[in-house]
Amino acid sequence: MSTTERPSLANLQCPIPIADYPHVLLAHGGGGRLTQMLIERLFVPAGAHPQLAAMHDGAVLDVNGARIAVSTDSFVVSPRVFPGGDIGSLAVHGTVNDLAMCGATPLALTSAFVIEEGLAMDELWTIVRSMQAAAADAGVAIVTGDTKVVDRGKGDGLFVNTTGIGLVPAGVTIAPTRARPGDVVLVNGPVAQHGIAIMSVREGLEFETTVTSDSAALHTLVAALLGACGDAVHVLRDPTRGGVSSATNEIAQAARVGIRLDEAAIPIGEQVRGACEILGLDPLYVANEGKLLAFVAPERANAALAAMRAHPLGREAAVIGGVTDQHPGRVVLRSRIGGERIVDMLSGEQLPRIC
Amino acid sequence: MSTTERPSLANLQCPIPIADYPHVLLAHGGGGRLTQMLIERLFVPAGAHPQLAAMHDGAVLDVNGARIAVSTDSFVVSPRVFPGGDIGSLAVHGTVNDLAMCGATPLALTSAFVIEEGLAMDELWTIVRSMQAAAADAGVAIVTGDTKVVDRGKGDGLFVNTTGIGLVPAGVTIAPTRARPGDVVLVNGPVAQHGIAIMSVREGLEFETTVTSDSAALHTLVAALLGACGDAVHVLRDPTRGGVSSATNEIAQAARVGIRLDEAAIPIGEQVRGACEILGLDPLYVANEGKLLAFVAPERANAALAAMRAHPLGREAAVIGGVTDQHPGRVVLRSRIGGERIVDMLSGEQLPRIC
Repeated sequence: MSTTERPSLANLQCPIPIADYPHVLLAHGGGGRLTQMLIERLFVPAGAHPQLAAMHDGAVLDVNGARIAVSTDSFVVSPRVFPGGDIGSLAVHGTVNDLAMCGATPLALTSAFVIEEGLAMDELWTIVRSMQAAAADAGVAIVTGDTKVVDRGKGDGLFVNTTGIGLVPAGVTIAPTRARPGDVVLVNGPVAQHGIAIMSVREGLEFETTVTSDSAALHTLVAALLGACGDAVHVLRDPTRGGVSSATNEIAQAARVGIRLDEAAIPIGEQVRGACEILGLDPLYVANEGKLLAFVAPERANAALAAMRAHPLGREAAVIGGVTDQHPGRVVLRSRIGGERIVDMLSGEQLPRIC
Repeated sequence: MSTTERPSLANLQCPIPIADYPHVLLAHGGGGRLTQMLIERLFVPAGAHPQLAAMHDGAVLDVNGARIAVSTDSFVVSPRVFPGGDIGSLAVHGTVNDLAMCGATPLALTSAFVIEEGLAMDELWTIVRSMQAAAADAGVAIVTGDTKVVDRGKGDGLFVNTTGIGLVPAGVTIAPTRARPGDVVLVNGPVAQHGIAIMSVREGLEFETTVTSDSAALHTLVAALLGACGDAVHVLRDPTRGGVSSATNEIAQAARVGIRLDEAAIPIGEQVRGACEILGLDPLYVANEGKLLAFVAPERANAALAAMRAHPLGREAAVIGGVTDQHPGRVVLRSRIGGERIVDMLSGEQLPRIC
């Protein structure tokens, strides 16, 4: 079927204001307001990214009575190798986590490589092995793959897509729309490590010890949390691109609730905090790859905290805020010195190609 | 986990001979012998592309008793818009077809975009709409998506990954290893259209009428074929990158059988044949995106041909060869003038970035 044979296309104008945005900008991929606009105005109306999935980390399908979670992510991180991981391990962790944020047990991953002509064969081998090691550690099989090569200058070494398939256990319903006033918000450890690990390499920053990405597979932590709290776990979200700020804003908008965060309660490492000051970054906007936010009914919040702290990936877990019926759709931060400010989504990109 | 903490990586040499191939070449993505070497020696040993899936178009998982087919494909076609389609419709057809070649009914697709900064917003809109139209035509939902943007000069406009999930009906077992001596080989219509449509645009060739890509979703044709012949359908394969030659060679190797093809019986359009002569291409090596090869038990071959011809995408279906216990692992073509020659896999790339 030729594109010229589709009159319906010609009659529909592009829903992004072309006068303002004639071209795609880096910021459209930054995870902030422009990303949200691109998804909500362009992909969702075209049916290419459904609304529900756009506000969540994956979709859940009913297949012969089983609830199958599906999530896809392309990884374009630069540099490809960084303290704490590489594009291969990140591609496994990122998609395993997107499944886990649906409450799903990961079953299988696919991997698709777009390689730029000229990539060193040895580097490809190292990354493929790293991917395999991360999948083996997570107990998830890579079941099928694809390899494409583009001409020199038409890519950037390597882009990796992983798509994950998981099974949502009976009785589990995790969704951003389930956040409700009274819910307690927890995080499993210090924020902003991944973004700072990447930026340190890019900017050549040196610290006493290396800031390492927190990249990790969170599905066993989620299993422990669900085991301890069951249906009292309402929302799970990994604050990746756009950090805690984007993640909480998306949940506040999806559930039409307010979220308050307590700055003093948000764990952050000393070196990460120092690096954020040097780089002029707000750590709430910096990406994480081994962190999750859990929204839990208040009566199970202590159990959730205990379950997290008993897990190797949750030893520094903390309660960082809660859900309110005030200021629906907005996130408000109570600062260390007692003032309050709105935590908005970033409109542009803070850190391009962080994942 | 840091890569330096993985001693096992350091001890394992890259299984591709680095002296011969220090870098990835375009030909490693061409679908021929170098692609096969990359997959078999590098991806398969690392567990990133399992052996079985590498020889098939997808993997089949058992989930709560249901057989779920999964297939992934990244599309890097250049140009992005061509006679008969664009990267959006191609990304839907390609993955729907990979599922269909497992005998699966497609259930859902994911879509992931890697956009180069500077892509015209209007073109993105057109391609996303085209993708949606192709999915709607095929009756398959796009259930979740991802968007990344890379800096100008680090991509090539747009790369699209689609991953598909399908359900394999009870009683259906389609696999390249099931080819057996006596099987009849059918194709659903004229070959080499897609590759020539792309090359015509690239080379600025003009014909009396435009050569149009055959890009189409083949799952309803497969359903008709399975309805008519059931378990007598042993192998299905869409001859995309590397064309009929690569597809038949892979099957001959997987099943350890010989395949003979009858050149005079292989349908090919006059303009496509002419273009192949001008461009110096063998049509057996040129990609298709709306064709399938079916290997059917001899007693059901007539029924298979009739079922194909009764379907809009199979009107020009033909028997083009058969499986033999002679020359296992090899494909032999009987030429128009009566001679025989081995049809080998291409070692390099013939047509880069054809899909």
